[in-house]
Amino acid sequence: MPENKPENRNFDLTSTNFIGCEASYEECSTVIFGAPFDGTVTFRPGSRFAPSQMRVESVGLETYSPYQNADLEEISVHDAGDLDLPFGDTTAALEKIGGISKYLLKAGKHPVMIGGEHLVTLPAVRAAYLKYRDIHIIHFDAHTDLRDEYLGEKLSHANVMRRVWDIVGDGRIHQFGIRSGTREEFEWARSGHTFLTPYNCDGIEDTAAEIGSAPVYVTIDLDVLDPSVFPGTGTPEAGGIAFCDLLRAMLALRRLNIVAADVVELSPHYDESGVSTAVACKVLRELLLLIGK
Amino acid sequence: MPENKPENRNFDLTSTNFIGCEASYEECSTVIFGAPFDGTVTFRPGSRFAPSQMRVESVGLETYSPYQNADLEEISVHDAGDLDLPFGDTTAALEKIGGISKYLLKAGKHPVMIGGEHLVTLPAVRAAYLKYRDIHIIHFDAHTDLRDEYLGEKLSHANVMRRVWDIVGDGRIHQFGIRSGTREEFEWARSGHTFLTPYNCDGIEDTAAEIGSAPVYVTIDLDVLDPSVFPGTGTPEAGGIAFCDLLRAMLALRRLNIVAADVVELSPHYDESGVSTAVACKVLRELLLLIGK
Amino acid sequence: MPENKPENRNFDLTSTNFIGCEASYEECSTVIFGAPFDGTVTFRPGSRFAPSQMRVESVGLETYSPYQNADLEEISVHDAGDLDLPFGDTTAALEKIGGISKYLLKAGKHPVMIGGEHLVTLPAVRAAYLKYRDIHIIHFDAHTDLRDEYLGEKLSHANVMRRVWDIVGDGRIHQFGIRSGTREEFEWARSGHTFLTPYNCDGIEDTAAEIGSAPVYVTIDLDVLDPSVFPGTGTPEAGGIAFCDLLRAMLALRRLNIVAADVVELSPHYDESGVSTAVACKVLRELLLLIGK
Amino acid sequence: MPENKPENRNFDLTSTNFIGCEASYEECSTVIFGAPFDGTVTFRPGSRFAPSQMRVESVGLETYSPYQNADLEEISVHDAGDLDLPFGDTTAALEKIGGISKYLLKAGKHPVMIGGEHLVTLPAVRAAYLKYRDIHIIHFDAHTDLRDEYLGEKLSHANVMRRVWDIVGDGRIHQFGIRSGTREEFEWARSGHTFLTPYNCDGIEDTAAEIGSAPVYVTIDLDVLDPSVFPGTGTPEAGGIAFCDLLRAMLALRRLNIVAADVVELSPHYDESGVSTAVACKVLRELLLLIGK
Amino acid sequence: MPENKPENRNFDLTSTNFIGCEASYEECSTVIFGAPFDGTVTFRPGSRFAPSQMRVESVGLETYSPYQNADLEEISVHDAGDLDLPFGDTTAALEKIGGISKYLLKAGKHPVMIGGEHLVTLPAVRAAYLKYRDIHIIHFDAHTDLRDEYLGEKLSHANVMRRVWDIVGDGRIHQFGIRSGTREEFEWARSGHTFLTPYNCDGIEDTAAEIGSAPVYVTIDLDVLDPSVFPGTGTPEAGGIAFCDLLRAMLALRRLNIVAADVVELSPHYDESGVSTAVACKVLRELLLLIGK
Amino acid sequence: MPENKPENRNFDLTSTNFIGCEASYEECSTVIFGAPFDGTVTFRPGSRFAPSQMRVESVGLETYSPYQNADLEEISVHDAGDLDLPFGDTTAALEKIGGISKYLLKAGKHPVMIGGEHLVTLPAVRAAYLKYRDIHIIHFDAHTDLRDEYLGEKLSHANVMRRVWDIVGDGRIHQFGIRSGTREEFEWARSGHTFLTPYNCDGIEDTAAEIGSAPVYVTIDLDVLDPSVFPGTGTPEAGGIAFCDLLRAMLALRRLNIVAADVVELSPHYDESGVSTAVACKVLRELLLLIGK
Repeated sequence: MPENKPENRNFDLTSTNFIGCEASYEECSTVIFGAPFDGTVTFRPGSRFAPSQMRVESVGLETYSPYQNADLEEISVHDAGDLDLPFGDTTAALEKIGGISKYLLKAGKHPVMIGGEHLVTLPAVRAAYLKYRDIHIIHFDAHTDLRDEYLGEKLSHANVMRRVWDIVGDGRIHQFGIRSGTREEFEWARSGHTFLTPYNCDGIEDTAAEIGSAPVYVTIDLDVLDPSVFPGTGTPEAGGIAFCDLLRAMLALRRLNIVAADVVELSPHYDESGVSTAVACKVLRELLLLIGK
Repeated sequence: MPENKPENRNFDLTSTNFIGCEASYEECSTVIFGAPFDGTVTFRPGSRFAPSQMRVESVGLETYSPYQNADLEEISVHDAGDLDLPFGDTTAALEKIGGISKYLLKAGKHPVMIGGEHLVTLPAVRAAYLKYRDIHIIHFDAHTDLRDEYLGEKLSHANVMRRVWDIVGDGRIHQFGIRSGTREEFEWARSGHTFLTPYNCDGIEDTAAEIGSAPVYVTIDLDVLDPSVFPGTGTPEAGGIAFCDLLRAMLALRRLNIVAADVVELSPHYDESGVSTAVACKVLRELLLLIGK
Repeated sequence: MPENKPENRNFDLTSTNFIGCEASYEECSTVIFGAPFDGTVTFRPGSRFAPSQMRVESVGLETYSPYQNADLEEISVHDAGDLDLPFGDTTAALEKIGGISKYLLKAGKHPVMIGGEHLVTLPAVRAAYLKYRDIHIIHFDAHTDLRDEYLGEKLSHANVMRRVWDIVGDGRIHQFGIRSGTREEFEWARSGHTFLTPYNCDGIEDTAAEIGSAPVYVTIDLDVLDPSVFPGTGTPEAGGIAFCDLLRAMLALRRLNIVAADVVELSPHYDESGVSTAVACKVLRELLLLIGK
Repeated sequence: MPENKPENRNFDLTSTNFIGCEASYEECSTVIFGAPFDGTVTFRPGSRFAPSQMRVESVGLETYSPYQNADLEEISVHDAGDLDLPFGDTTAALEKIGGISKYLLKAGKHPVMIGGEHLVTLPAVRAAYLKYRDIHIIHFDAHTDLRDEYLGEKLSHANVMRRVWDIVGDGRIHQFGIRSGTREEFEWARSGHTFLTPYNCDGIEDTAAEIGSAPVYVTIDLDVLDPSVFPGTGTPEAGGIAFCDLLRAMLALRRLNIVAADVVELSPHYDESGVSTAVACKVLRELLLLIGK
Repeated sequence: MPENKPENRNFDLTSTNFIGCEASYEECSTVIFGAPFDGTVTFRPGSRFAPSQMRVESVGLETYSPYQNADLEEISVHDAGDLDLPFGDTTAALEKIGGISKYLLKAGKHPVMIGGEHLVTLPAVRAAYLKYRDIHIIHFDAHTDLRDEYLGEKLSHANVMRRVWDIVGDGRIHQFGIRSGTREEFEWARSGHTFLTPYNCDGIEDTAAEIGSAPVYVTIDLDVLDPSVFPGTGTPEAGGIAFCDLLRAMLALRRLNIVAADVVELSPHYDESGVSTAVACKVLRELLLLIGK
Repeated sequence: MPENKPENRNFDLTSTNFIGCEASYEECSTVIFGAPFDGTVTFRPGSRFAPSQMRVESVGLETYSPYQNADLEEISVHDAGDLDLPFGDTTAALEKIGGISKYLLKAGKHPVMIGGEHLVTLPAVRAAYLKYRDIHIIHFDAHTDLRDEYLGEKLSHANVMRRVWDIVGDGRIHQFGIRSGTREEFEWARSGHTFLTPYNCDGIEDTAAEIGSAPVYVTIDLDVLDPSVFPGTGTPEAGGIAFCDLLRAMLALRRLNIVAADVVELSPHYDESGVSTAVACKVLRELLLLIGK
């Protein structure tokens, strides 16, 4: 009988969910899941460890946000655990991610994915696009991610937004904080394919106003943050934005209709101080509250 | 309906249990639980992080042991999660540990605790003693842990075995691998209170033979291992035994009636290579297989 | 005869005092001492190592501050070493801290304590309050620290300012940089109990003006700094202030009558680059110069 | 004119070759090259950084081996640099490795590859097999690597030796130091497919005698070493052999006709002390001297 | 025949040059070389490892700079490797640095040196002064480096700019970002010897305008950056400038006639996250583009 | 009056001496002092931090040795602090070390020096030789240290024992554990200049018997230990001895007349786990007890 189980007997046994995400699947409106894949990373791998490490370390965070005056325990988020993804077979891994994303969207849930490398965004956007053909992408990143090929590969963390563009087309991708790429990528973006704001998030309020009530996918490559704030990432790039800049930009999205989102590119083993993981947890908290309101 | 939940829908979502410990509470014979307490540690704290880190890192381990030709998936172990323990109130923490230990023993389960500092052993032994008055203690450690007081404290990681002796009395504690303590502790042990084998585990087969079928509590302070093997611990002490020495000593306990056990003093943040955590996971696997056979 | 001692014979043997704090107890006006206690910390412990590590690393710092155009060697500071505090017995530890604080205040010295966790502030404030009933508290922190209880505990790093309020009452606590807490804590503060400035130190000049010549206790929880600046702390919280912000705020206190102070929550092992320790040393230098002028 | 170049003008400009490997391609008998691929690793990636880090750190090593009374500067080794391998496309990466291996063997050179993960061994063995149909494989490893599939993959670090067996067949693979695998793998090996020596390298002299003058490929997965000796690896497995055990086993191969070899699975970022890299460099030195004599 | 060499046969073998610096010596206009010397460092050594680590890690950087809309591959930079410098003999090391600097300047190349500690700047400036008697020095640093003696030494990282002043005299040294030194150093600078801008780079545009077309040596002690941005350095000093501040200051030098330059004081082992090395690489890229245009 | 000082008033203020070394200079028979010099190190510097770090970390060690059944508190050791040594001027640093060594020997004390790099042994041996012309040197090390010159230098950590031989001549130096050097060094040693035992400490009992009652200087380069045991050192060399091997060898010296000694080459920042420092502290404890008996 279940009441015999020690976890049901007042022994204060703790779960391993992300803090404050204790809703059951049935009652929840948002579902978080991990996509621990980093198979195409060319420089420093390890973002596969992000979801499990974020759960463990999330106990250092409050569930309440003074910025939004909201609390994770007051919205309903279900933590579904991590996908078990194969390494060495990129296509199979992306398919699994696409599968669960579609399933959740069909069930009327908001999927929020914890990467993994940025390529995991591709099947999640595709799933969202199948449901919402008029979807816009808000993209925070240090890197353009707009190469057509990268080292001969069409599927890579370095060209994920180009592949996303293959799906959504011109005028739908809004890039903020970009400070690294080839000349060709910057020129391609500026020739009308994406809205690229270099170095910072200036003008995001205008972007939000223009998008209005259209469905939005938010993808946060955490390396948009300055490496001082977020050293634990695969390709640290100097000259990024501060945490408060990112927070302010996120709060500018407050009225948007965010249907799905992700937080990617934490590689926790490269920051043994634990600070990068703590930063990622706080970004996720604010993102969940943004969606859950 | 539960079949709607993504974790039940073939999405390969992974649990966060210790690897191979997937049995339900009802069917299991052994229960592992974490006791993340390190409040009396005087040198390097952090063993509070051991249980959660061991679960995360246990995926690097096979469930099969070639040493015992046995597999965790073939015995039934339930992972009950971690106790939520207060810091700064030692007595309250110990009470919670004693509570769950008694509950599990009464239910006919074998409790296997993951520390935490060594003091967590005290309530677990007391619980076992209440059920088994003729219990013996097999104690692997670098340190005698036999002070009567330590910095004025009666309850401390540095005198836990003295407090255990208060419960079980002379001739019941069998200490192996000891290489650090005060002269008084060594002399007190040798004056007939405990069986103390310094530096190594010589003679453990004889100890096992003498104990015969009496109930046994096994407590493994992982700092019995040499710091080269196990740097991630609160008080590293040079001159310890190798992993294979500990393994051989554990296998010598194979026919004993082990009713409860613990593995303590992993402080994972002091070994960022992850090796100490991997070693602790392997020791736990062998211990579970020893009990589960 | 002392002149026989090598340290008195021109061999350039270095002391282990904090740099520039070479005054004898008799001649000094300020005394620094360490309170290496972290027994109630719930997330990452290790602030017990702060005082000794700061002394060792302080050799990387100049004794001269260009910000204040003042030099540690020109004011008289005595370094009294560290208190030897018990772990696992919070009450006894706090009593020792209170004892030395009272002793120093009675002797007309300014006590400046190096934590340890934030709870060490409680007995130090109580000692100051006994001498100065009209004392004000300037509190820099990321966290409100205003819970009434925390995990059932009345004495904890997470409710230290609530306990301080028990002593000094409404209108005496001035909090700056706060960005984490429960909704209840923020509301309790704002209902007239403390002056809470969230996120930054805006308005500290006005606070200083209002306090005027009343006695002041300054407590600097170093996690008020952004984790990029100060990763080596128990509960890193993104979105903090920069070093220069803290420095500017401290300089705004320049005309106040600071009677005692502390610097807490450096956990040096969590920042192996040594930068957090270097930052803490510089904050301490500026604080000592602020008091010593 | 080249004599104008500063590197030709007596300015003592250092190369970035592995220490002592300064022979030109034309004069050399052995060629080392890096294969920085870790795309199928399931636990801790990062062996991609091994070749470049080993070159940088090799300056801490002498070129002379007292064990073999031989010096790298007395044999002729050319360091060809690293292959530029795609991530996310396992097949393409393996093809490149096979290509250069065949090229070097055809040119009469001994290829010695620095991994990367263990899967890089597969195309290198295949290349050697094409030239030497009677080839034997000496395999040092902690893991059996004999799964037929691993997480649905046929090509993976966890089944590389099974794929090697697909090429060379029964009775050609000699495994030493094995201490981790599934029960099925151990049983498959023992049913006549490979010669598997568990835990240590006992009997390697007999193996060498039986092989006699047949061509030999030596593959050293460095995780055969105990994690105390070699923490910087993807899947540390307690209970391994000491450096001197490996050295002794290698010296037992002294009279064999080694036609190609590799050293794999150093993941240098997981051992920031640099010791794992230093160990790998010394193993490579001894291996080169073994071949070069 | 060279075409037999595998590196010439389409095997994509990578060089170990700094990224994008693939020009031959003959065709290049700028030459980078390493000066791995840190023999006079008093606090944390290790800048000797900077040049080799920067080469290895530079693969994480794009060759294109969006800030300058320029690409390393479009200017011609030759990477000459590192000088082999003796430790323990400061004079001999400085002589070697001076030798190659003179050689390169005479050949009409722009020497760009990667330190090493700051003292390596002295012979490089002297070499430039011999060719350009009207040279100005732009100096970014946290420290004044203006002591006359330091611990009895005339040649030290702590007085390098004083020694440079011995060469170039009053009114030629322009210091930015300075925030640490003795009172005497600040006063000496302000008495007409150098132009010292404390804390930041305010007014650097005016400095650039005044210098006009005179030859300029730029020396960037990377500890001018805040330790949050750049923890991997010998003497981290809180209160520094952000990466973007340094970048902006460098871009203000865009029209100057920079004849030689250096980047010093990266100590990579003190930042195992790799971020400091990544920052140093980006600073070097921008510096090379500044000179190469 | 001194009784006013808080450290004399029962406040349990801790000193920063090495644990158990609380004797005054007058009463002591042994004096420990630090020589924090690493100016000629060619690979990884940082042994300058050893003495201060060992003092701080020594609190994790018991003062009692079960191996010798002796206690540091029962012999009289004075901790004199560290010499303040210049960097960049090797000769001046060595002179200071020689000066204090002579002073202590003349006063009838046993000097025990904590390095620093191995070169600090040279002036200490010279001082001992001036008093004891028949002195023998017991030398534990991984490296021969017998080059005549090293990179053109006569004074270097890599040729310190050759310089010692210049003083004491043939037949006086007994080397144990040696496993690295050039062929020339090994041959030079074996041609009658030193007694060199490679790889281990075999035969040290015979050496002790032959030395008999002659005065002995013991120099322990801690890199004689295997890097698994002692990663925190400048030039880690695989294949070393275990801690227990070193301990056994030291105990074989128990009846010798040790007049002075040193422990060198701990570089604590290269082992952030703290284990290397803990090992060094334990070696020092055993060495002090060996001398103090």
